[in-house]
Amino acid sequence: MLTKAEISRIRALDEKHHREEVGLFVVEGEKAVGELLTSNYPLLEIYATEAWKHPVSDSRVHTVSEQEMSRISHFPTPSPVLAVGRIGRTALVAGELNQGLTLALDRVQDAGNVGTLLRIADWFALDRVVMSPDCADLFNQKVVNASMGSFARVRVISAPLEQALAGLSVPVLGCDLEGSDLHLLPPMKHAVILIGSEGRGLSAGVKSCISQRITIPRHGGAESLNAAVAAAIVCDNLRRLA
Amino acid sequence: MLTKAEISRIRALDEKHHREEVGLFVVEGEKAVGELLTSNYPLLEIYATEAWKHPVSDSRVHTVSEQEMSRISHFPTPSPVLAVGRIGRTALVAGELNQGLTLALDRVQDAGNVGTLLRIADWFALDRVVMSPDCADLFNQKVVNASMGSFARVRVISAPLEQALAGLSVPVLGCDLEGSDLHLLPPMKHAVILIGSEGRGLSAGVKSCISQRITIPRHGGAESLNAAVAAAIVCDNLRRLA
Repeated sequence: MLTKAEISRIRALDEKHHREEVGLFVVEGEKAVGELLTSNYPLLEIYATEAWKHPVSDSRVHTVSEQEMSRISHFPTPSPVLAVGRIGRTALVAGELNQGLTLALDRVQDAGNVGTLLRIADWFALDRVVMSPDCADLFNQKVVNASMGSFARVRVISAPLEQALAGLSVPVLGCDLEGSDLHLLPPMKHAVILIGSEGRGLSAGVKSCISQRITIPRHGGAESLNAAVAAAIVCDNLRRLA
Repeated sequence: MLTKAEISRIRALDEKHHREEVGLFVVEGEKAVGELLTSNYPLLEIYATEAWKHPVSDSRVHTVSEQEMSRISHFPTPSPVLAVGRIGRTALVAGELNQGLTLALDRVQDAGNVGTLLRIADWFALDRVVMSPDCADLFNQKVVNASMGSFARVRVISAPLEQALAGLSVPVLGCDLEGSDLHLLPPMKHAVILIGSEGRGLSAGVKSCISQRITIPRHGGAESLNAAVAAAIVCDNLRRLA
């Protein structure tokens, strides 16, 4: 039986400032929780109804009624399992962006897009994702869910991009409509792929960090591609050549 | 001044069966309406507040107050313009799938995904998109908006896929994890790219229409890519080779 205080505590994690205060976040759904368990992500508490199909039998698991689940869930339609995890933030190590492939996200505020971008970084085994502080919060449940488990496998760093990208020795690639043809790009094992907010593009300061403008060849009438789609095409091309 | 009946009539277009009954749909937002006007899409009525920045001066335009706009809008935060257009459905012409590139969507129910897929089809100048009848409705406003104007430029056909794909002479490409390497694919100017529902994949009948299984080379831990992302990478590769 959950107390009122426990219910409020879990519900409050829907908001970023509450998550930051206590250093905890919530993840729900059999798929998402299952992925974090498989990755041995540090989950502290697991609340599950009898309907949960893959129960873990350890002291973290609390069996709750469906009614209790509907009170702690952040979803309109609760799933059979909800877990509380510890927020772990990773800091940028000096010089690390000069090694390997980095996806850098500038003010990508849509949580679903951020999650999809993490999944792409995971598929292409990028070395890391750097997010500007005004991107959607990594511990927002929509990000975790849209990442389909990649959340737990990708190294993600939050850092002001202008500073992080200053003075790099690797190419910093930015997509626009007048860059060099992506299909003709020479092989790159070390580079930064810059992706901006879909509505507003890259901020001026970050734009000035681009060392090479690239263009995904366009054949038809669309003005642009969605941010995640563009990132994926660039990754597929860089990995093709490597 | 809008009458109560006019307001109800426009609001009702939020639901598919009402749209089908009267053959009309709604599109809102300066960007989306602007794109349809640019493409000369047959819009019948345009409702705009004083704040609309690019007014068209013809008999279709009705100036409304912000309060009236909030009553006809399907959005929680209304935009300065709402247009009513005529639903135009296109039928499959016998044999047309044997010519050019076709994107075939099997039960893709997320409206945002369908819109993004139309935008991809537009960018890569595919010849058409064929949607199974259980995909999100093309005239759902979320589809129109997510397509960023591509809605008006791409030939879209709704048809049962199993019948549409039967007996084709062009390759029918399906993505899975055990197909041939997409990067090694020979040039193709004529093909069907099959994309399934993200959660459920391709239905069994449609799966049996695949003549060539292809795989986007994977480097990391993600189990899969999102449907639109996969479609875009395949299109970029087919267009690279053509």
